[in-house]
Amino acid sequence: MIPTIEWHNNHVRMIDQRKIPGRIEWFTCRGYRDVIRGIQVMVIRGAPAIGVAAAMGLALGARSIRSKLYTPFMKKFEKIAHEMLLARPTAVNLRWAVERMTRLAENMAELPVIKIKSALRQESEKILAEDIEINRRMGKHGQGLVPKGSTILTHCNAGSLATGGYGTALGVIRAAHESGKKIQVIADETRPWLQGLRLTAFELMEDGIPVSVIADNAAGSLMRRKRIDLVITGADRIAANGDVANKIGTYQVAVLAKINRIPFYVAAPISTIDPTIKNGDMIPVEERGPEEIYRFGKREIGPSGVRVLNPAFDITPAKYVSAIITEKGVIRPPFKKGIKSYL
Amino acid sequence: MIPTIEWHNNHVRMIDQRKIPGRIEWFTCRGYRDVIRGIQVMVIRGAPAIGVAAAMGLALGARSIRSKLYTPFMKKFEKIAHEMLLARPTAVNLRWAVERMTRLAENMAELPVIKIKSALRQESEKILAEDIEINRRMGKHGQGLVPKGSTILTHCNAGSLATGGYGTALGVIRAAHESGKKIQVIADETRPWLQGLRLTAFELMEDGIPVSVIADNAAGSLMRRKRIDLVITGADRIAANGDVANKIGTYQVAVLAKINRIPFYVAAPISTIDPTIKNGDMIPVEERGPEEIYRFGKREIGPSGVRVLNPAFDITPAKYVSAIITEKGVIRPPFKKGIKSYL
Repeated sequence: MIPTIEWHNNHVRMIDQRKIPGRIEWFTCRGYRDVIRGIQVMVIRGAPAIGVAAAMGLALGARSIRSKLYTPFMKKFEKIAHEMLLARPTAVNLRWAVERMTRLAENMAELPVIKIKSALRQESEKILAEDIEINRRMGKHGQGLVPKGSTILTHCNAGSLATGGYGTALGVIRAAHESGKKIQVIADETRPWLQGLRLTAFELMEDGIPVSVIADNAAGSLMRRKRIDLVITGADRIAANGDVANKIGTYQVAVLAKINRIPFYVAAPISTIDPTIKNGDMIPVEERGPEEIYRFGKREIGPSGVRVLNPAFDITPAKYVSAIITEKGVIRPPFKKGIKSYL
Repeated sequence: MIPTIEWHNNHVRMIDQRKIPGRIEWFTCRGYRDVIRGIQVMVIRGAPAIGVAAAMGLALGARSIRSKLYTPFMKKFEKIAHEMLLARPTAVNLRWAVERMTRLAENMAELPVIKIKSALRQESEKILAEDIEINRRMGKHGQGLVPKGSTILTHCNAGSLATGGYGTALGVIRAAHESGKKIQVIADETRPWLQGLRLTAFELMEDGIPVSVIADNAAGSLMRRKRIDLVITGADRIAANGDVANKIGTYQVAVLAKINRIPFYVAAPISTIDPTIKNGDMIPVEERGPEEIYRFGKREIGPSGVRVLNPAFDITPAKYVSAIITEKGVIRPPFKKGIKSYL
């Protein structure tokens, strides 16, 4: 399996997801700003992977601070942390990782700065290792929801490449496959960025899990024709009431699943839950550039000067979610209560 | 306005819709098989336009028959008509046009073959002119359903390029715009073929009607956020009970409109109604090649050898349709009764 992100000597490197599956190329980050740029231009994407990247970016940033005294070090570190927070607005795992790293540094005020720097790097490695472990646990909890021989629809890429490794939604699918359930997957291609066609299909084919790609437009029709048994997606942020922010198009899939009486599951680590957000409509939704829609590579497809709306995420109200699969277990409705008890 | 299809000297030529908006190029048909190919590879598409093309193709085909005697002429003509019928399976307008042309030839058994040939060409020109006139009437009937200042979502291209001219869904939108209603349009880009981005946005920009393009994934989210007031699409075939076959993704849009209490209108000429089909699930749905999904131009985007499902149309059950706009008036539910009275 290709690692999504790793330390390599004193740098952080990420697989450049803009180029998969055509080319497998590293994107090397020598400073924290390279990491921010990598997150913004989607060299790396997926809520848990962004969290890992942010942690590694802060460790890189810490190392670049010259001061050997704690107070000026922390002042600069917090500035870097603030910059990191702004990289992308929707996935809460980024904030979660930044807060965890900041807390660690705050709790080491007594130690020499050089020790703090190495502790931050270690913490970022720990976050990566934990993320993979969390995904495996999520897989174990979630695969009980997957019937033998079933066909699973997934949207976007919530796989190995969206996480430290193994995946959230694809982790559950991998676990079901590994347990011999003879499942198959239908992957929404997931416009505009085509994570489903480029990343999900690629990952599943590498693992020998049967997968077919469809235009996002075909998901509803396949549900109506009873060609899909369940849906599993990831999440970028989950509100205290169970509303889910995830890749644009998730809301549509969830509504269509409900109408066609198909379970709709969300697989996400506890760190994706944001208890400070009451409901989904309070989650900031990133609007990305128009060129993701009207350009393909360097070629313009749409009419010159065409106006585009390009929200990168949407909100799925909790009432459309059958269950949330976490590393601690499966949360069932009513989510407000369930989420509280899991935090 | 660019003509979709026309006679040019003794040939038929169509604007090559695969190349819009990048290039405006004619595709010249010297024989009926060129027309069939043009329909199959989607040089021309859209149910009413396919009907016009089929009629012109049959006139071309008739001209190429050498026999001067009626019986052998008709035998060959019927063979050509049968070939034409198979060009694409879903849009019923193709069958409608073939039957109209065949009936005309059948009713002229007494005339010299040369007269029949020229009558067939005239008939095909009449079908084109009628189609434009029908669209204008549809526009007049339909625009009453469009509130002032409203935002209209449309899917695929049901415009000038999908018809002889003016358009079905876009005809209604044009009529509303011409009446000074200050509307705006949101166009689903409509994967895999991107008719919305390439054709609908192009047409509306040419006409100065405000339009924004979105990924198909964003339609539901915009509806939930009350950014869309009504939906208008075209149709490829309408069953006797009001079920609608249309471009893949239409079903999803209709369900999402219903859930969000937004009217969903279908604009289509009476010739799109197929009274021989009881309900939508009896309509044949074309499955197109995988390369429409995994290739872009000549570039492969998906992983090599990826499996694809690519249904070109879907069925929207009548219960999701608020009204059907035809050239004879607006049909309201219950459709079975309404459709019967309009035929």
